[in-house]
Amino acid sequence: MRVGVAGLGTVGAGLLAIAEQGVLAKAGLEIVAVSARSRTRARGVDISGYAWVDDPVELARDPSIDVFVELIGGSDGPAKKAVEVALARGAHVVTANKALLAEHGAALSALAEEMGVALAFEAAVAGGVPIVKAMRESLAGCQVQAVSGILNGTCNYLLTEMEASGRSFEEVLADAQRLGYAESDPTMDVGGFDAAHKITILAAIAFKTKPDYAAASIVGVDAVRLVDIQLAGKLGYRIKLIAKAERTGDAASVEVSPALVGMDHPLAPIGGAMNAVNVQADPVGALTFIGRGAGAGPTAAAVAADLLDVAAGRFGAPFGTPIAAMGALGAGAKDHHGRFYVRLLVHDRPGVIAAVSEQLGKAQISIDSMLQMPVGPGPLVPIVLTTHPCARRAIQGAAEAIGGLDAVAEAPCVLPIEDTKR
Amino acid sequence: MRVGVAGLGTVGAGLLAIAEQGVLAKAGLEIVAVSARSRTRARGVDISGYAWVDDPVELARDPSIDVFVELIGGSDGPAKKAVEVALARGAHVVTANKALLAEHGAALSALAEEMGVALAFEAAVAGGVPIVKAMRESLAGCQVQAVSGILNGTCNYLLTEMEASGRSFEEVLADAQRLGYAESDPTMDVGGFDAAHKITILAAIAFKTKPDYAAASIVGVDAVRLVDIQLAGKLGYRIKLIAKAERTGDAASVEVSPALVGMDHPLAPIGGAMNAVNVQADPVGALTFIGRGAGAGPTAAAVAADLLDVAAGRFGAPFGTPIAAMGALGAGAKDHHGRFYVRLLVHDRPGVIAAVSEQLGKAQISIDSMLQMPVGPGPLVPIVLTTHPCARRAIQGAAEAIGGLDAVAEAPCVLPIEDTKR
Repeated sequence: MRVGVAGLGTVGAGLLAIAEQGVLAKAGLEIVAVSARSRTRARGVDISGYAWVDDPVELARDPSIDVFVELIGGSDGPAKKAVEVALARGAHVVTANKALLAEHGAALSALAEEMGVALAFEAAVAGGVPIVKAMRESLAGCQVQAVSGILNGTCNYLLTEMEASGRSFEEVLADAQRLGYAESDPTMDVGGFDAAHKITILAAIAFKTKPDYAAASIVGVDAVRLVDIQLAGKLGYRIKLIAKAERTGDAASVEVSPALVGMDHPLAPIGGAMNAVNVQADPVGALTFIGRGAGAGPTAAAVAADLLDVAAGRFGAPFGTPIAAMGALGAGAKDHHGRFYVRLLVHDRPGVIAAVSEQLGKAQISIDSMLQMPVGPGPLVPIVLTTHPCARRAIQGAAEAIGGLDAVAEAPCVLPIEDTKR
Repeated sequence: MRVGVAGLGTVGAGLLAIAEQGVLAKAGLEIVAVSARSRTRARGVDISGYAWVDDPVELARDPSIDVFVELIGGSDGPAKKAVEVALARGAHVVTANKALLAEHGAALSALAEEMGVALAFEAAVAGGVPIVKAMRESLAGCQVQAVSGILNGTCNYLLTEMEASGRSFEEVLADAQRLGYAESDPTMDVGGFDAAHKITILAAIAFKTKPDYAAASIVGVDAVRLVDIQLAGKLGYRIKLIAKAERTGDAASVEVSPALVGMDHPLAPIGGAMNAVNVQADPVGALTFIGRGAGAGPTAAAVAADLLDVAAGRFGAPFGTPIAAMGALGAGAKDHHGRFYVRLLVHDRPGVIAAVSEQLGKAQISIDSMLQMPVGPGPLVPIVLTTHPCARRAIQGAAEAIGGLDAVAEAPCVLPIEDTKR
C-alpha cells in the first residue's frame, strides 16, 4: 500500500522515524509522498526519499496513494478538504485531527462507510493511549455508562505546576509557553476546546450517537485560581480538567470542566502532561488507561497502529457503529446533578455567611461543608463551601444571586465535584 | 455465525448473559449450542434455548459450529483436545484459557494460521483489561522494552489484606477461601503459576518470540511473610506479585515474583483483586492499563469482544506475529540485574551484622540501607537490608552463604526491588 503523509510537524516527523525502523514496510506499507508547508524546515528526519507535493489536497487526490495520512490539523481548511477528497475517491484515511472528527465526524464517517474505506483516528484522542480502539472494539459488547478523562496535557501540566509551586495560573502559563509546553495562543488548550473535541469523539463511540461538538458544555482551566487549588487541597481534593461523557437516562451529556476529584479518584494521581481515561461500562466494570497524550513518539505510534490496522484490513465503521444507525446525543448536560464546590471572595464583614446561606436555602441547596480562611493580605476573604447533590441549574442560579450580594466581590467560582468510582 | 460454548462456569454464564442483551446477535453471532459438566447446575441463566452437547470435543467437531468458545480451562485434557479439533476443521476459536495458550500456544497458533481462522484469547490475560489487543495491535508499530503487571487478583487481594489488616498469609488466605476469592486448592494462584501463564502470553506478543512457559522464573506470594510487608512499608515500599517480561539485550526474561515497588510506582496503588499492566515501549512511552482481572462480567466482556472481532473479520496471527516468524525467548532471567531486598531472621547476638556484611562484601554486593527492628516477642529478630544493583546470581549465592551462618535462623527472603518507571 502506498502512503502519502500531509503535515510534517512533530507527529509527521515522528511517523517518518517509525517508518525508518522498517515496521511499516514489513506490513506492506510504503510512505511514498509527503506534503507540508515548508520543504526545508529542520525536522530531524530525511525527507529526500519521498516525493514532495506542495498542496495536501493534490496529494490526497493522487490516485496512486492508497492511504492518506492527514497530520495538518484544524477543523476546516486544507485538512478537511484533503480528507474529503481522499475518502471520496476511495482512499483510506488516517488522521490525528480531533477538531475535524469532532466537528465533521458524522459526514466524514458516512463518506468512509459509503466508500468502504478506513477512517482511522487513534491519534486524535490521548496520543499514545489506545483508547479509541479499546472503546470501539474491546468494549463493543459492553454498555458504556461514563467516560471521563484528563485529555489535555497542557492543562494538566498547568494545574499540576500551580499545585506544586504555589504560583498563579498566569505565571505557570508563561513558563509553559517559554518551555514549549503551551502554544503562544493557548486558547484551544486552556479554554477546554481541545479536550472537548476529544471527549466528543469518545462519546460518539461510547453511546453510539453522532459526534456532536456543539452539544458539549465547555469550561476551561482559566476559570481556576491558585486559591481554588489551595482550598480544594484543604478539603481533600485536587482540581483536574475533567472531560466527561455520561449516560443520563436516555440522554447523554458531554462536558469539559475543571472539577474537584478526591485523592482516591483514578484520575487524581495523573500528573504533569500525562493523559488518562476512566471508562465505566457494564459488565466489564471500570477500566483506566494512562499514558502520554502528546508528543512525536506517542502520537506517531498511534498513527502507525492505525496504518497497520488498515494494512491488515482491520477496520469497519470509523466510530464503531455505522453513522446511519447512530442516534442524536440528548442534551443532558444542563441537568447535571451532583455535588458542587463554590468559592466566593467576600468583604470580611458581619452577616456575609448568613446572606450566602440564605440564597442557598432559597434554592433548596444544602451545604455539606464550609471553610473560611485568611489567605494573603487585602480586604477580601475567600469562603469556600461544598454542597450536597443538587441540580447544576439550581447551583448556577444561586451563585448568580450570591454574586449580586453587596459583600460578595465577584461572581462565585462554581466547580463540580467528581465522585470516585473505580 | 453459529457459536458453540464449552464450559458454563462463571465466565460462560456471563457470556450467555451478554448474549441475552442482543449485542452478539446484532453482529450476526448466534450461540446455538453449549456443553458443560453439569446440565442442571444453577447458573442464573436459562440454557434451555441452546442445544446441549455432553462432550465438548463433540461440540468442537460439529461442522455447523463456526466459532468454538472454550471456557473449560486447564492446559491439557478436553480443553486442548477440543480447541485442536475445532481449529483443525477450520472453525474459529475464542478462549479464556491462559494455561493452554502459555503451554501450547505456539502449536495452536500455527494451526490457526495454517487454517486461516481466528484463535482469540483476550480473556486469558487480565480479564476485562483489553491488554492482549492493545499489545497485539495498538503497539504493533512499537518496540516493547518491558511489560510488568499485577495479573493475579487473588494474590493481590491477599497482599492488600495482609498490609491492611496486619494478619498473616495463612489467616488471610483462609478468609479468602471462605469468601470464594481463593480456590480451595490455591496453588495455581499463590504459587505464581497463573500469573506466569499470563505474562508468558504477553511476552510472546511483546517480543515476537514463541510462548515459552518453561522459560519463566516463578516465585509465588507464599514466599512473603507479614513481617516482609511491614518492613517493606518502613522502607517506603509495598510488596506486589509482579509478573514481568523484559528485554535484556538480545534476550528477554519472563519472571513472576513478589517484588518491592515504591509508592510512586504505577502498580503500587492497585489494590484488592484489581489487575494492572504497565508497558514500556518505544516510541510510545509508558502505558498503564487498570481494571478487573476476573469475574463473570469482565472476563465475559473480553470473550464477547473477541467474538465481535471474529464476526467483523478483525483477526490475524493470534500472537500478532506469525509463529514461523517468531524466534525463541532467550533465557535472560538468571542474569537479572537490579536492587534487592534481603530479610533475615537472626538470633540477637553480637557480631551478626558484621558476619552478614562480610558475606555480602565477599560477593561484591554493596548495601544501600539496613534496618533492624524489634518485631513481636521471641528470640529471633528480623534484619532487613537493601542492596545496590547487583546480579541475581550474586545475591542468591550470598543469601545461601548467609543462611548458613550460625546466628541466622533460616534461609533469607530475597525479593527484587522494582524501579519506578512511568
